[in-house]
Amino acid sequence: MSLKVVKFGGTSLADAKQFRQVASIIKADPTRRFVIPSAPGKRFSGDTKITDLLYRCYDELHAGGNFEKTYDEIVSRYNSIIAELGLNFDLTGEFDYIKNALLHRSGRDFAASRGEYLNGIILAKYLGFDFIDAENVIFFKENGNFDDERTDTALRCELCSHKCAVIPGFYGSMPNGTIKTFSRGGSDITGSIVARAADADLYENWTDVSGFMMADPRIIKNPCVIDVITYRELRELSYMGATVLHEDAIFPVRHAGIPINIRNTNAPDDRGTMIVATAPTYDHKRVITGIAGKHGFSVITIIKDMMNSEIGFGRKVLEILEDNELSFEHLPSGIDTMSLILPTADIESRRDKLLTQLNRATRADSVTIEDGLALIAVVGRGMVKAKGIAARIFSAISTANVNIRMIDQGSCELNIIIGVDENDFETTLKAIYNEFVK
Amino acid sequence: MSLKVVKFGGTSLADAKQFRQVASIIKADPTRRFVIPSAPGKRFSGDTKITDLLYRCYDELHAGGNFEKTYDEIVSRYNSIIAELGLNFDLTGEFDYIKNALLHRSGRDFAASRGEYLNGIILAKYLGFDFIDAENVIFFKENGNFDDERTDTALRCELCSHKCAVIPGFYGSMPNGTIKTFSRGGSDITGSIVARAADADLYENWTDVSGFMMADPRIIKNPCVIDVITYRELRELSYMGATVLHEDAIFPVRHAGIPINIRNTNAPDDRGTMIVATAPTYDHKRVITGIAGKHGFSVITIIKDMMNSEIGFGRKVLEILEDNELSFEHLPSGIDTMSLILPTADIESRRDKLLTQLNRATRADSVTIEDGLALIAVVGRGMVKAKGIAARIFSAISTANVNIRMIDQGSCELNIIIGVDENDFETTLKAIYNEFVK
Repeated sequence: MSLKVVKFGGTSLADAKQFRQVASIIKADPTRRFVIPSAPGKRFSGDTKITDLLYRCYDELHAGGNFEKTYDEIVSRYNSIIAELGLNFDLTGEFDYIKNALLHRSGRDFAASRGEYLNGIILAKYLGFDFIDAENVIFFKENGNFDDERTDTALRCELCSHKCAVIPGFYGSMPNGTIKTFSRGGSDITGSIVARAADADLYENWTDVSGFMMADPRIIKNPCVIDVITYRELRELSYMGATVLHEDAIFPVRHAGIPINIRNTNAPDDRGTMIVATAPTYDHKRVITGIAGKHGFSVITIIKDMMNSEIGFGRKVLEILEDNELSFEHLPSGIDTMSLILPTADIESRRDKLLTQLNRATRADSVTIEDGLALIAVVGRGMVKAKGIAARIFSAISTANVNIRMIDQGSCELNIIIGVDENDFETTLKAIYNEFVK
Repeated sequence: MSLKVVKFGGTSLADAKQFRQVASIIKADPTRRFVIPSAPGKRFSGDTKITDLLYRCYDELHAGGNFEKTYDEIVSRYNSIIAELGLNFDLTGEFDYIKNALLHRSGRDFAASRGEYLNGIILAKYLGFDFIDAENVIFFKENGNFDDERTDTALRCELCSHKCAVIPGFYGSMPNGTIKTFSRGGSDITGSIVARAADADLYENWTDVSGFMMADPRIIKNPCVIDVITYRELRELSYMGATVLHEDAIFPVRHAGIPINIRNTNAPDDRGTMIVATAPTYDHKRVITGIAGKHGFSVITIIKDMMNSEIGFGRKVLEILEDNELSFEHLPSGIDTMSLILPTADIESRRDKLLTQLNRATRADSVTIEDGLALIAVVGRGMVKAKGIAARIFSAISTANVNIRMIDQGSCELNIIIGVDENDFETTLKAIYNEFVK
């Protein structure tokens, strides 16, 4: 029998109305057996997420102030959900326990995690599902890294004894019994881990948009939704700033070969975006899958005569980066020049040191750093074999009157990376989008 | 008073008629004071260069055979030049000495160098210039490398005592008194070294074409001549396979700020190509300066999840290249992929070893090598600031129906490097040339 793991984001569970919508989605398909809820998100623009209220509680307390008012706000949010759903139970015992724990050094992560924890209890009750506390199945190591093996073993064992269950997202436990959370948005990761342990056929990730957009909606008005995207493409786009799914949520299911379906809780008939291991290279009409980009890059340019014939030149340069705990994004090279593209923020504090070290080690004719570069990734699995894509991209950029500062396309790549001046970032992104989406 | 150093190539000195032409060029400008001759080249298609005859002599002798016939051919070539020029001297003593030296372990370089040596003596007589034997002013070190300092000192001193002189190209002497040559075409280097030591205002390099072509004439029919090219541009084009000038001839004059003028001995009114340190970026109408390319590259592709966040990943890879005494040409990179472009010939003998070492050191998901890549460099100092160049290049390639396998353009580069399948090499080169030269 097929099995789906379903994760619902914060806005999907912001209030009782949204809980009903989520329940109807789950009940519509009996294979939706394991549910990962986030904490209640914003009900309206200007509202505050429960997780943020919890962090605020902790910070107020930590600053020696009074957190009662904020805490009451949290309690009343949950109580109104329970009341409006007509559930016959109350969480007074839980609320008291949490308040006490906050007062007794349970830590900031514990505070933040209670949003998912409480939401999980309510959702389980409402659905009539079992509740599995994530602290008993999601484990971290002493060093704070996720403990993949221990988690997978415990989770597989636990899931076997439940037909249907709710497992709150975002957190797990440390070897010493304290609670630790993933980074923000980490419920996506919990969902992915559960999907793998459950040997799910599909990991549905329900959110407030109808899938992964082809471009940033803050720049492109109403961008098209991507139907099918590969893990690799998604990773390229996510890395370059596109968001929907937590970046680390990809690896557990990817290795298990489980597809992810991004769906819209409030438009359940939309098919959303399917994230898969492999997809035909010519299955979509637009050739490119998506476009994303980031500001804030610097270029270190090293010029030295005969650099090209100097064996070990590149190694020396990268060794200095490594000493400074830096990793480069791109390394375009000519005969006598080598450029390193890095985030400006990474080099900021050691700019002079880097210049000195590079000069000394390479005995270069010149080493310079230039800021203000934006990188744009045009991603598409069809690009490797398709002809004329580069022509369309660069014609569009040219028509937009933008000067190109860097290009990087590898031989087996599914992307072209284009560097432009930060001031040209939005213009370039729009030009490329409009070229491919008519 | 201004001073020019003039170097004449082999075809420019192939016979008496060419000697007269060369003399008229030198006499037309009294500032042409120092002359570097090559050995007599081909007089007609199918003819043999003196240098090749000298190598043949050596090889025949070395194989235990008879070299008399070949040697006589050399002697008669020189004698006919002397006779036709109506010169009243003979080189019998020189010819005898060289023959004896060949029989007495003077070495292969000595044999080859006599082409320039003898031509230099004849040209000096014909011009009424002093003769300076290169062995007394051009020096190599024990390790075979050119001895820059010793040469410059000796040459400056020697040149001071001559108003006008002929210095044969191509060779110099080792610390042990034997003769050593530069690599083939090395008279260009001698000329450059002499120009620097003479503090020349210009280094004229007279050859059989009216300058540096925008593209390889074997692929593009009658390509345009480049008016002005910078040293850096020339180096990029030379490196990528374009030839006129020996690659190492650039450095001596470049550092001294002496321009090189490539001229055509048989069309002395053509202005030829001026090679300069810097030139305005918008001084030529075609935007690009030249196009060149090479076959025979391989791509090593390394794929590993999260490669991008692994500090030191690139360093590990380049360390392995260094251990194998390899240097990479280009290193395009994605988030989880890194490609290394290298000459196939360089990796041929250690293909398996490289794969094993790279796999072991990087613990990559996959490491593969793919051959059959051709690289094309589109070079132009105006490209950094000009807009729309990439668009024109890639549109032209697209129209030619060629798939692009790699692109590398650095941020301060004056070139774009494009990787295509070897089978698409000529098509791509033609497409780009025709786009920029109408």
